[in-house]
Amino acid sequence: MSVMNVVSLPTLSRVALCGGTHGNELSGIYLVRERLRRREKGAEAEPFALVTVMSNPRAVQQCRRYTETDLNRCFTEATLSSTPVSDGTPYEILRARELNALLGPKGSPEAVDLVCDLHNTTANMGLCFISYSDCDWICLHIYRHLQREMATIPVRYVHFDLPIGEAYSLESVGKHGFAMEVGPQSHAVVRSNVYMAMKEGVQLMLDWIRLFNSGAQFEGGPVELYTKVKTIDYPRDSESHHISAAIHPELQDRDFCLLHPGDPVFLTFSGETLRYRGKEPLYPFFVNEGAYYEKGIALSLARRRRLSIPSIQSERR
Amino acid sequence: MSVMNVVSLPTLSRVALCGGTHGNELSGIYLVRERLRRREKGAEAEPFALVTVMSNPRAVQQCRRYTETDLNRCFTEATLSSTPVSDGTPYEILRARELNALLGPKGSPEAVDLVCDLHNTTANMGLCFISYSDCDWICLHIYRHLQREMATIPVRYVHFDLPIGEAYSLESVGKHGFAMEVGPQSHAVVRSNVYMAMKEGVQLMLDWIRLFNSGAQFEGGPVELYTKVKTIDYPRDSESHHISAAIHPELQDRDFCLLHPGDPVFLTFSGETLRYRGKEPLYPFFVNEGAYYEKGIALSLARRRRLSIPSIQSERR
Repeated sequence: MSVMNVVSLPTLSRVALCGGTHGNELSGIYLVRERLRRREKGAEAEPFALVTVMSNPRAVQQCRRYTETDLNRCFTEATLSSTPVSDGTPYEILRARELNALLGPKGSPEAVDLVCDLHNTTANMGLCFISYSDCDWICLHIYRHLQREMATIPVRYVHFDLPIGEAYSLESVGKHGFAMEVGPQSHAVVRSNVYMAMKEGVQLMLDWIRLFNSGAQFEGGPVELYTKVKTIDYPRDSESHHISAAIHPELQDRDFCLLHPGDPVFLTFSGETLRYRGKEPLYPFFVNEGAYYEKGIALSLARRRRLSIPSIQSERR
Repeated sequence: MSVMNVVSLPTLSRVALCGGTHGNELSGIYLVRERLRRREKGAEAEPFALVTVMSNPRAVQQCRRYTETDLNRCFTEATLSSTPVSDGTPYEILRARELNALLGPKGSPEAVDLVCDLHNTTANMGLCFISYSDCDWICLHIYRHLQREMATIPVRYVHFDLPIGEAYSLESVGKHGFAMEVGPQSHAVVRSNVYMAMKEGVQLMLDWIRLFNSGAQFEGGPVELYTKVKTIDYPRDSESHHISAAIHPELQDRDFCLLHPGDPVFLTFSGETLRYRGKEPLYPFFVNEGAYYEKGIALSLARRRRLSIPSIQSERR
């Protein structure tokens, strides 16, 4: 294989590992706590600068997703910069600016090289990368590494196709970044298997970064990713706006299983099956995510794509 | 079989079906809403007085377990009567008194004949009756009916051995009463299969009451129940009081599977297995219930007993 086909990229000298961006997603919170505790005790030192962050300590303390507004929707350029701050500014907007100062500023040369933000979902999504880019070779190579190495849990990559200025979540602050979403796990609950999968995923990511920084070359090849197309809300009562149906048992827990036109999507509380009326078969994910009832999202739908990523290597220093 | 062995009991002329006692346990909430909606539309009338109650509407509106204090711990005689009410009295204590006035007063001849309070748990408990009595033939016969009729979900009966004055939960307000606990379901999420199991359980209970009131005789026989013995808390960090372990993967989701001395109970966040140190094998339940982290309960343990219940029939009117 010719060296000419290898893309050279800067080393990842500053990496941020964040948890507790949502205060009731416990695997990431306990993982961050455990790492902070071990670092205090002077356990292992990383060969690169790793900053470990509890993103929303107030929400963590209350074991709620957020205290005033969803922190992980506050990292758009608009919210980070143009909104004037007043006494009534929600805590999470202030905290987003603090985090942007610590890890960014977003879009600047000072930003950390990589942000990995740890999340849990009530949906049966396995371990899922969520990223705003489908051409970030760093994220895609890390994804491929986890997919190859993790035996106990499926590993997938979801691409949110938004311009970076509109990207609303914490990982968009880094030069590279992704959310690591692991489920199913009830909010405000920690399950050992989910915690251990996340811990293994983080360890594999750190191993990969160490190898990359040391000059190893990573072979390119095909990867599969899911690009989000749209979301579907629950059927709702026209007066009360309460939901009038739950995800159908045949769709529940079947994230990333192709949904065909005519397949059951909802079962109303009075017992009627409602079917998928789209024309194109698509892949559901975030099926029955607990935090999305308030956002009007019963499930998201994605198109699956295959693409080829190049071989990469860190730049000679 | 001789009529002399048949216990005569008063008919159940007033029955309460309650949901939303915890505002984020969605199956019971949507089931109560659906019944209220259909009653408004003048759908079916029950042949007995059935009152359908949304117990904690403020918590339901916020989709939280409670707003100030856990409503389902407010029905002790002490909390219902002796505490003086002031401006600072938590909403839930006031609401408990309202519900006691509506459905009780607890322990009085005016109390409704039966309270069924609908709950969900994150634990893998199937459909579980929880009651303060092991000799309430009404509750035990209803339990037996559901156990025989429900095909899709295991049905069990847990006995909390407390004097009725110390009984803290809503169902203790009725002359007879039980909580119907269905799981696993994440809090703030509704799963169709759990909703449908609860709906079927409620329908079977109402069918049984109709038959009982119409004079049918129900054969006695053996039943199995679980009497709660104790609870076990999570291991915790001595300084921060944060939990330092999760339920072990070999115990997770294995509610009502016998736990033997030496069996794994916890897996610490650093990877160490902690084992059950009790001397007696016991049956775990409420394993990793999300709402109990704050109560210092990782799991409860019960002894299984078999007892024989008599044949019953409603009193001739």
